[in-house]
Amino acid sequence: MAGVRDRYAALYRDEWPTERLQFFSDAVFAIAMTLLVLDIDIPDVDSSRLGNALRDAQPQLFAFVLSFAVIAATWVAHHRRFEIVRVADTRLVQLNFALLLVVTFLPFPTAVLSEYGSETPAVVLYAGTVAALGLIQLVTWSHVRKAGLLNSEIDEGTYRYGRRVHAVDPAVFLASIVVALLGFPLAAMLTWLAIPPGSWLVRRTADGGGSVS
Amino acid sequence: MAGVRDRYAALYRDEWPTERLQFFSDAVFAIAMTLLVLDIDIPDVDSSRLGNALRDAQPQLFAFVLSFAVIAATWVAHHRRFEIVRVADTRLVQLNFALLLVVTFLPFPTAVLSEYGSETPAVVLYAGTVAALGLIQLVTWSHVRKAGLLNSEIDEGTYRYGRRVHAVDPAVFLASIVVALLGFPLAAMLTWLAIPPGSWLVRRTADGGGSVS
Amino acid sequence: MAGVRDRYAALYRDEWPTERLQFFSDAVFAIAMTLLVLDIDIPDVDSSRLGNALRDAQPQLFAFVLSFAVIAATWVAHHRRFEIVRVADTRLVQLNFALLLVVTFLPFPTAVLSEYGSETPAVVLYAGTVAALGLIQLVTWSHVRKAGLLNSEIDEGTYRYGRRVHAVDPAVFLASIVVALLGFPLAAMLTWLAIPPGSWLVRRTADGGGSVS
Amino acid sequence: MAGVRDRYAALYRDEWPTERLQFFSDAVFAIAMTLLVLDIDIPDVDSSRLGNALRDAQPQLFAFVLSFAVIAATWVAHHRRFEIVRVADTRLVQLNFALLLVVTFLPFPTAVLSEYGSETPAVVLYAGTVAALGLIQLVTWSHVRKAGLLNSEIDEGTYRYGRRVHAVDPAVFLASIVVALLGFPLAAMLTWLAIPPGSWLVRRTADGGGSVS
Repeated sequence: MAGVRDRYAALYRDEWPTERLQFFSDAVFAIAMTLLVLDIDIPDVDSSRLGNALRDAQPQLFAFVLSFAVIAATWVAHHRRFEIVRVADTRLVQLNFALLLVVTFLPFPTAVLSEYGSETPAVVLYAGTVAALGLIQLVTWSHVRKAGLLNSEIDEGTYRYGRRVHAVDPAVFLASIVVALLGFPLAAMLTWLAIPPGSWLVRRTADGGGSVS
Repeated sequence: MAGVRDRYAALYRDEWPTERLQFFSDAVFAIAMTLLVLDIDIPDVDSSRLGNALRDAQPQLFAFVLSFAVIAATWVAHHRRFEIVRVADTRLVQLNFALLLVVTFLPFPTAVLSEYGSETPAVVLYAGTVAALGLIQLVTWSHVRKAGLLNSEIDEGTYRYGRRVHAVDPAVFLASIVVALLGFPLAAMLTWLAIPPGSWLVRRTADGGGSVS
Repeated sequence: MAGVRDRYAALYRDEWPTERLQFFSDAVFAIAMTLLVLDIDIPDVDSSRLGNALRDAQPQLFAFVLSFAVIAATWVAHHRRFEIVRVADTRLVQLNFALLLVVTFLPFPTAVLSEYGSETPAVVLYAGTVAALGLIQLVTWSHVRKAGLLNSEIDEGTYRYGRRVHAVDPAVFLASIVVALLGFPLAAMLTWLAIPPGSWLVRRTADGGGSVS
Repeated sequence: MAGVRDRYAALYRDEWPTERLQFFSDAVFAIAMTLLVLDIDIPDVDSSRLGNALRDAQPQLFAFVLSFAVIAATWVAHHRRFEIVRVADTRLVQLNFALLLVVTFLPFPTAVLSEYGSETPAVVLYAGTVAALGLIQLVTWSHVRKAGLLNSEIDEGTYRYGRRVHAVDPAVFLASIVVALLGFPLAAMLTWLAIPPGSWLVRRTADGGGSVS
């Protein structure tokens, strides 16, 4: 009776239409984004001190906006990626779940950063989580090309350029972990601000020079 | 090797189909709306005092219904706007995320209003948040016309009329901040009730007179 | 310059496609349903007493399953209604938001019932909320017919039969409020169990007799 | 006036298009998955002890990842099943709600496991919940074939093979309950790791031998 396994397997396509995958991912992004607000503590003080208490909540507000921006940027990148992906294979589904796992986890490091500010473990946990988001997307970029899941062919130079663009965020966040572990957690948080100019520089360099490795 | 950047950029369209944007926004609206209920405290009293405790929860219920109405009105406006928007550009995506940031934040001011009632800082925070919702939508209205993202042409008069309609909510909420800061937080909350008649008046005036500036 | 208002109004259709409305409603149903679990308290006891603590959580589990069933039944009714509704008008959008307001509110009475069991105020609050769900749906049934929003004509008898079917739930829950206020909250909860047989009886009677009023 | 009931019933189709059912289920999966993070406690310690506190959160992290994997696997199975289901009947809708009830409940056993680690009642509750997920899916597999809801015919051998594949998870989790009740909760948790190899073995055996019963 050999062949039962094959007949069962044949019921299901190897390829996944990307629509339900995108939809499901969008829902996870939207929920993770909306849960972040729960990390801002409602002040529990005398009415007369409410104004001060709200001003004291500024670091929590910073963490909220930061994580909102991280999820928004990840959503935009996800959206654009699936615009050029024709179909998903099992490995892409797995990589997508790895990404979603990190996205759903993000409210935890956000809450820790929100409570403990620039303490080294809080900064390392946060930077590690965001770096993981970036690394998974870097691997995904490489996978979708190698597995031929893209809408159209892309040449080696463009692929490498894309890889560089994808590498900026995890590189900065991993570097910031080193800075934090050396005892400068506040400086580590400041390096996160290097991402917009760093991203710009990478795009310029890659464009001008021929040494895209 | 100049051109890599261009070839990479060419992978992605400058224009975004609005469908996934709407879907994602809807999910955020729905979640923010549903999280509001978590701000109503479950009474923690003796069974014999439960009835009184539930009656005491009325200000929390008021804040819940108010924020539900704010999100519902924003959803309706969002829905209508995207009905006449043909396609989104990057700036519209950014404006949309700014709107969603404020929507996901709303449960916090709601909880503060819910706990502290008509205290000045609570009223100012709430009014400022709702005013921000309105201002972002006003800027969006202007952007979608100027960037040519609309389905069909609209004449200058209709555009200005729409701008006026969009300005009512933020104007009232900003005015209420002044009233609250002058020491009359309860009166400030009452001005919010001026929105339905104010909205009606603006529509009438704009229609009758020729002085739409 | 009379006419600006009309030109602005003409930008938007009076009729709403039901698709985004259904989608948005589905998201709210799904979230409200999933938030219910947060009302079950995680036991905070000695490890040796965990088994007992979990057994003591049974009333909370009952409240969880009850509210899950209420939302599931409302979703099914919503789904079926929009299957026969061709298009939505502003009033239907408003009725739909009224329904969603009550759905998002449901986790609160569920939590109160969960904490206080068969106390009169907890039972009255819960029954009132579910009765409101039913009444809004009864009004909606009447509205979609009168406003001509249905896919196809339905005759008076069928319409009245549908009205009766829709009236069972709110009637039982309103009756249970009376029973609870008379001092029998536990009996009131038991009347909720009358809904499945009551529903069956109404359908039988309406079918056999001609006195559908 | 007999027939009113029939005319009312005729308004609604017996068969449900699967699209909105899938959409609604996806939203529930996404939300349950994202709520899991709320079970990881934000440390409430001195800044100097934050690092230790985060390391102590590892069992909570394990429970988070485990339940994420359970929901992800259930989503994948759900996705695949609805790929081969042509249409849904009322019974499938009921089975789907039973599945969703257990999915929305999962954050509770996860939180208990997270707090109490390898205590017998925590392990039994968790294993029972996941076993229920598997059993409902086993019944569903049988129902969709018998009710003729599938896209295409499948022969008896393939059906039985699928039944075996579906039976692995609940069998392991039910067995682990016995192990836990015998006083070995930690060993019970380890048996969960038998699922990937067990699944592989079942597929091999079924394929090679003719004794698929």
